[in-house]
Amino acid sequence: MVEQPSRTLGELAELVGAQLFGDAGRRIRSVGLLGKATGDEIGFCASARYLDQLRSTGAGAAVVREEHSQYCPTAALVVDDPYYAYAAIASALHPRERAAPGVHPSAIVASDAILEAGVAVGPHAVIGAGVRLGRGTEVGPGTFIGDGTRLGEDCWLANGVSIGADCSLGDRVMIHPGVIIGADGFGFAPGPQGWRKVPQLGAVRIGDDVDIGANSTIDRGALEDTVIGPGVKIDNLVHIAHNVHIGERTVIAGCTVVAGSTTIGSNCVIGGASAITGHIQIVDGATVTGMTGVTNHIREPGVYSSPLPAQPVREWRRNTVRFTQLDDMFRRVIKMERELEAVTGKQGKRGRSD
Amino acid sequence: MVEQPSRTLGELAELVGAQLFGDAGRRIRSVGLLGKATGDEIGFCASARYLDQLRSTGAGAAVVREEHSQYCPTAALVVDDPYYAYAAIASALHPRERAAPGVHPSAIVASDAILEAGVAVGPHAVIGAGVRLGRGTEVGPGTFIGDGTRLGEDCWLANGVSIGADCSLGDRVMIHPGVIIGADGFGFAPGPQGWRKVPQLGAVRIGDDVDIGANSTIDRGALEDTVIGPGVKIDNLVHIAHNVHIGERTVIAGCTVVAGSTTIGSNCVIGGASAITGHIQIVDGATVTGMTGVTNHIREPGVYSSPLPAQPVREWRRNTVRFTQLDDMFRRVIKMERELEAVTGKQGKRGRSD
Amino acid sequence: MVEQPSRTLGELAELVGAQLFGDAGRRIRSVGLLGKATGDEIGFCASARYLDQLRSTGAGAAVVREEHSQYCPTAALVVDDPYYAYAAIASALHPRERAAPGVHPSAIVASDAILEAGVAVGPHAVIGAGVRLGRGTEVGPGTFIGDGTRLGEDCWLANGVSIGADCSLGDRVMIHPGVIIGADGFGFAPGPQGWRKVPQLGAVRIGDDVDIGANSTIDRGALEDTVIGPGVKIDNLVHIAHNVHIGERTVIAGCTVVAGSTTIGSNCVIGGASAITGHIQIVDGATVTGMTGVTNHIREPGVYSSPLPAQPVREWRRNTVRFTQLDDMFRRVIKMERELEAVTGKQGKRGRSD
Repeated sequence: MVEQPSRTLGELAELVGAQLFGDAGRRIRSVGLLGKATGDEIGFCASARYLDQLRSTGAGAAVVREEHSQYCPTAALVVDDPYYAYAAIASALHPRERAAPGVHPSAIVASDAILEAGVAVGPHAVIGAGVRLGRGTEVGPGTFIGDGTRLGEDCWLANGVSIGADCSLGDRVMIHPGVIIGADGFGFAPGPQGWRKVPQLGAVRIGDDVDIGANSTIDRGALEDTVIGPGVKIDNLVHIAHNVHIGERTVIAGCTVVAGSTTIGSNCVIGGASAITGHIQIVDGATVTGMTGVTNHIREPGVYSSPLPAQPVREWRRNTVRFTQLDDMFRRVIKMERELEAVTGKQGKRGRSD
Repeated sequence: MVEQPSRTLGELAELVGAQLFGDAGRRIRSVGLLGKATGDEIGFCASARYLDQLRSTGAGAAVVREEHSQYCPTAALVVDDPYYAYAAIASALHPRERAAPGVHPSAIVASDAILEAGVAVGPHAVIGAGVRLGRGTEVGPGTFIGDGTRLGEDCWLANGVSIGADCSLGDRVMIHPGVIIGADGFGFAPGPQGWRKVPQLGAVRIGDDVDIGANSTIDRGALEDTVIGPGVKIDNLVHIAHNVHIGERTVIAGCTVVAGSTTIGSNCVIGGASAITGHIQIVDGATVTGMTGVTNHIREPGVYSSPLPAQPVREWRRNTVRFTQLDDMFRRVIKMERELEAVTGKQGKRGRSD
Repeated sequence: MVEQPSRTLGELAELVGAQLFGDAGRRIRSVGLLGKATGDEIGFCASARYLDQLRSTGAGAAVVREEHSQYCPTAALVVDDPYYAYAAIASALHPRERAAPGVHPSAIVASDAILEAGVAVGPHAVIGAGVRLGRGTEVGPGTFIGDGTRLGEDCWLANGVSIGADCSLGDRVMIHPGVIIGADGFGFAPGPQGWRKVPQLGAVRIGDDVDIGANSTIDRGALEDTVIGPGVKIDNLVHIAHNVHIGERTVIAGCTVVAGSTTIGSNCVIGGASAITGHIQIVDGATVTGMTGVTNHIREPGVYSSPLPAQPVREWRRNTVRFTQLDDMFRRVIKMERELEAVTGKQGKRGRSD
């Protein structure tokens, strides 16, 4: 970790709008864990689970909620949301290192590409015809940008990224290594001689402040564009198929797949390893927990789940066999209910599954 | 989208064997959506769901089935399968742009590699010793081809593709960015000092007209080859393990994994996010829906499924707890059936789960 | 396959500590399948399933267990574990081809990087400032190593690998194409203006003898490091999130995701397409079968599972509908048990789900 310039506690408190209890002039060089931080580091306590660590911390300061400040043995920055304030402080103390502006001599840049001020293009990058890179945008080593694609300002493309032709990215978009944006969607028409490729003529449009994790793929649309709204955060190894629309600030965790032409609303949270089928709509504000299969529209906000829990294999084997007999069992139970009712003469409850 | 040369409706009708109702001389420049297309574009109506859009389309022409032609307010190309015809028309109007033949000066090509006529090798590509690239094959920027690998004619390898040594690809194979073909299979022998690597000495053989989506991986065989049959279409982020055989024209959607030594037949359709266990056989013509776990042979054609549907989390929690008690419940139901039979004196139906 | 130098049966027997029945001077050039091997090849029989092939093999020799040696029609190397011995023999007969030491002229290597004796750096590789590559380590074409990262001896990084800054790898680590190590973890703090990035300030530490499969991703830690223990083997398209710890000799099969801050013990086996939730602990020696969702701590060694089996779609549809009614059904069964008890006057068994 490169050593960063320090800040005073007063500066940090002002940065996050905190009430400061302690020496405003104290210099902080780094963030740290409460249990390990030293005097020039600042920790944070976002939950009562960490109160023990807070009580004994050696940190020079801690970001805490008001009700925890009494347990803070060092300077305290009191805020409503310590984790959010920590994110801001960590970003200030550990800013992303920026590449020096300029084009590495080994990069291949089309003669008509437009590189605005402060753009950096790394070794072996390839920039196609008609590409436009906004002010301050960085393109990492070996990254490929296809013809006609436009990036906004202050984007960061890591090494080994691939962006197909005619796509557009907003400002401050961060793309991690190995991401593939704008490859062909999976479109084939069945016919007598097998599958015939359907040209994928749309592109990918990505809004401002989007973050896409390593080795994820976002395919171009078939006739219209695949659209990723502003503020969307996508983790590693996620696949977004053609014509998908994802609303602003939605978060998608690792190894999830979203099949073609599905629309996910704004402010959704999609857990990792989930599979979302094609041609459905998910309402704004839905949460899908990890490893969930979404096979139908979600029309009401709320939390949705489907995975079974891991069980010891012997129990799992018995229960899964029973699962395959479930409908038969339901029918037998319903029949018994009727017989028992006849015996007892009472009106049994008849459930929805009759 | 690069502007393409136009075609007349007469030419397009001939291309797909359509009956044309309208002006054969009308020029069409592009495909488009029925709801948005303009006079020099052609749309298609593959389903009654789009009849409303067909009725009010501004397209210069539409590809329709005979029973829908009465609703078409513009020139109609009548065919049996509008989607298949659309694929052919879209390919004609929007042909893939071909790279200019030749080797980019930054590419590293082994001196004994054989590049047939029309081959194009992009910037920073690396072509190993003894590689053979068939007539018209294109190799994208930064793509790597290992020693001894042979490609047929008119293949298209995108940027950032990796093909290991000694593999073979047929004609017209399309490989999207980030695909890894011929990396080592996952073979380790357990022993007293931990896992010992088992050399992966087979290769990967890929037939004609195969399409492999971004960031998918196809491992080389352990002793024999991994084999992908002609006409197979594989989506993004799919993993095909060592020694797998996939029969011709089978389609595999995104994020699916096929474990080692499994054989999948011809004309199968494997939904996305599925997991197919190792050392099994799947018969020709099987369909596996998305997110399905295939843990055993499939011996009969048909449709197979396993995922549970997403539920509101409260119901899901109750039902999954019950799942872990399922075998116990079955036993209790069976016991009750016997007791009830004794009470009623009737012979109760005794199901297969007794 | 490149032709390799041959070994005598005597040399091979000594290599694996086998008892040799046959001509110690016979030369073997290659490993092969029992059913296809010829006279200068050696096969192996690890299971009674292959006894028929053993009986009729044309191989020059076979590695067998003692109880199978009577069926071996050719020279026999008798060992306790034929598969493990086979791995050693295959490695001896088919050693990995090593790149010639030196730096390819197209590679970009920082002036202060330290390359020990025998290091090979391939075309278009990029080696950052302060990187150290241990003796005999190979870096493939187009591979990227970020500033300050240190690799041990005899590592092999394939083409198109990406290793972020400040990471460390032990000795004999093998990284297959497309692997991304040390990309940012998925850390964002929710706030009034959307998600704010949390800088990922930890690194990735990888022990000796680790093997990581194509296109897998291992994210750097948030404040502390992500740690992969010695001898760990990871398959393709696996995602290991930030702050995860994986104990020595654990094996993880393809397309599995391990969410953040989870600890997996030593000598675990994690099946493919599994999803392991964040912030949990899995004990040493646990086995998780394929496609299992691990949503809670595993505190006892043993085998754990969760997937449902693929069923014909009609049965699956009926049974999954019943699954959504499972809690209701349990309640009805419990009610019936009580009523039936009243009728029969007997004390019914009351299960744990009352």
